[in-house]
Amino acid sequence: MRTQVAIIGAGPSGLLLGQLLHKAGIDAVIIERQSGDYVLGRIRAGVLEQVTIDLLDEAGVGQRMHQEGMVHGGFDMLFKGERHRIDLNGLTGGKNVMVYGQTEVTRDLMDARQAAGLTTIYEAGNVSVHGFDTKKPRVRYEKDGQAHEIECDFIAGCDGFHGVCRASVPESAITEYEKVYPFGWLGVLADTPPVHHELIYVNSTRGFALCSQRSATRSRYYLQVPLTDKVEAWSDDAFWNELRLRLDAGGREHLVTGPAIEKSVAPLRSFVAEPMRFGRMFLAGDAAHIVPPTGAKGLNLAASDVKYLSSALIEFYAEKSEAGIDTYSERCLRRVWRAERFSWWFTSLMHNFPENGPIGQKLQDAELDYLVHSEAGARSVAENYVGLPLDFGS
Amino acid sequence: MRTQVAIIGAGPSGLLLGQLLHKAGIDAVIIERQSGDYVLGRIRAGVLEQVTIDLLDEAGVGQRMHQEGMVHGGFDMLFKGERHRIDLNGLTGGKNVMVYGQTEVTRDLMDARQAAGLTTIYEAGNVSVHGFDTKKPRVRYEKDGQAHEIECDFIAGCDGFHGVCRASVPESAITEYEKVYPFGWLGVLADTPPVHHELIYVNSTRGFALCSQRSATRSRYYLQVPLTDKVEAWSDDAFWNELRLRLDAGGREHLVTGPAIEKSVAPLRSFVAEPMRFGRMFLAGDAAHIVPPTGAKGLNLAASDVKYLSSALIEFYAEKSEAGIDTYSERCLRRVWRAERFSWWFTSLMHNFPENGPIGQKLQDAELDYLVHSEAGARSVAENYVGLPLDFGS
Repeated sequence: MRTQVAIIGAGPSGLLLGQLLHKAGIDAVIIERQSGDYVLGRIRAGVLEQVTIDLLDEAGVGQRMHQEGMVHGGFDMLFKGERHRIDLNGLTGGKNVMVYGQTEVTRDLMDARQAAGLTTIYEAGNVSVHGFDTKKPRVRYEKDGQAHEIECDFIAGCDGFHGVCRASVPESAITEYEKVYPFGWLGVLADTPPVHHELIYVNSTRGFALCSQRSATRSRYYLQVPLTDKVEAWSDDAFWNELRLRLDAGGREHLVTGPAIEKSVAPLRSFVAEPMRFGRMFLAGDAAHIVPPTGAKGLNLAASDVKYLSSALIEFYAEKSEAGIDTYSERCLRRVWRAERFSWWFTSLMHNFPENGPIGQKLQDAELDYLVHSEAGARSVAENYVGLPLDFGS
Repeated sequence: MRTQVAIIGAGPSGLLLGQLLHKAGIDAVIIERQSGDYVLGRIRAGVLEQVTIDLLDEAGVGQRMHQEGMVHGGFDMLFKGERHRIDLNGLTGGKNVMVYGQTEVTRDLMDARQAAGLTTIYEAGNVSVHGFDTKKPRVRYEKDGQAHEIECDFIAGCDGFHGVCRASVPESAITEYEKVYPFGWLGVLADTPPVHHELIYVNSTRGFALCSQRSATRSRYYLQVPLTDKVEAWSDDAFWNELRLRLDAGGREHLVTGPAIEKSVAPLRSFVAEPMRFGRMFLAGDAAHIVPPTGAKGLNLAASDVKYLSSALIEFYAEKSEAGIDTYSERCLRRVWRAERFSWWFTSLMHNFPENGPIGQKLQDAELDYLVHSEAGARSVAENYVGLPLDFGS
């Protein structure tokens, strides 16, 4: 088989890239290790920046998002028992975020891909990438016991943190930066109305909590827990009780509990691989970088990578110019590090770090107190939360 | 002897408090362990916030400061070999800072005190404070072999970090928060023109540096060094060479070197004691809190403590109201923690922390890059640097 761009990974990054390339008349094949149902079953973030919303519209898959997604013009920060609203809309000259689950984004992209009759190879075994330092890269995989090879002009590594693309780069050609946090997030998904119409980020003496949501009837809650905690040790009751203890009086009053339809503990990690281009192979999304989930930058960062990559490839085919390709890594990384910085900072601000001693909590309290009383401080949070413009600082 | 307010310590806090009380007709005696010359010989910070400038004017000692001090409307941040100016004046609606050495402030206050014929007892030995949990506190000391006792209404502990006042509070009545940084500042004072007309804060891969100044002909430079470095191991040449390596091309070109007239290594510390009032005794300035010197908040914070304390005492004597006294600690501490937060953050941003790994430096780079490209980010730095208003957030 031959294609112009072989995309490894059928998560939102790979699917969105495929859609944008298709719109530009560029042929692409997606190769995915898992089944489509497995990909859809992964529960991830659900807060989209304006940049991501625009991109989904550009890809022609924004219709259901605009119908079902919820526009949020702000969020609450709860500390020392009091809530303070960050007025995203007012502080950023009218920008908002959209609450719409990653699962739904993936589904919309899968539906569009299917409707367009485009090729996705699911359950591809032993995927491997070859010759990306030449002009004729190849992707090999096995399917139903048969070995296959795809010849292509480019490989797009949208295969996540544990994917094969980054792992195929010689160690000497890549630098990896990593920070692992000393706690995890215990998440619960429940078919109950959210405790509040917007998100609440909680810094309590018992640890961080986040009251998020997927829809008016589906809530998503998280608790900071020790990394050693096993999810089996957390009954539904124990989860709701602990969440209640981290909320304020109003939160406790309005919290509606119910059976957890998903429950898991996830570690928090900051990770960046540099560069993001290796000859004719590009990394995008989680394959190149991971952010801790505080502030929901992961999917949004993947989307902006895909925006830069699709533009570069479209430019290459339309104008025979390698300019976009040559600057891909640099453009992505500048934005990536800004989002890494914000995610690390917001994580550091909102979680408990007993290893920093009592002064650590006092400095957090002072920073929170400053932020909610300073227009400049609050605006700095807001502009990062809704997403810095794609051309920021350039 | 009897006085209304016994002030322990004749540094800038004690002297300023004495001056403000004198202007209000309140009698105060200052007791100081050291000689006047010793106090004047201490080389400290030299950047005054607007709040401090106003207060020195209020105390009637601002004349020489306005003549000889240098108004700075901005400072430079140098990182990755490039300088970026923080336009303090433009970002804060017209606020500036004043470069005028702490030694000069102290001298002006001493001169004013002498001119007014007010009592300062220098070289007082074995100073001790008593009965501050009663309405008749007393201060004892020895002078020229004689024991003395002063009866007073209030004791003001302006006696610094190692002073006797905080140390006299029962351990159970006080909470102390502390963070020690894993490096020190090697400082050099030299009679050479400053490398730049404004300050330069440097984040280089070799460590932090600060190009400061006391006047148009006197420079003050600092280098981040290991805490284990002895000052004797740093020759003048070694200092200038290392500073040059941390500067940019323009800095190297304009740096004028000369013999160090003072050279020392100082540790960096964040420290707060809570509360700041114990019955009829108050702590002010370094006696209650220490900030790392990045951002020059130490003297300014002492000045705002003194502002709150003088107002409270004036209110007490004029209106027989204890309202100001009762809220003194709370008012101070809110401002103190904000300045502690800023000083800690600015220190964390500008210094090398090898223990944070390579990702630590990358996150710093990203934060610096964000700050100089975001109006909100830069404004947040600027409003803290010039000093938050006394009534901020209340």
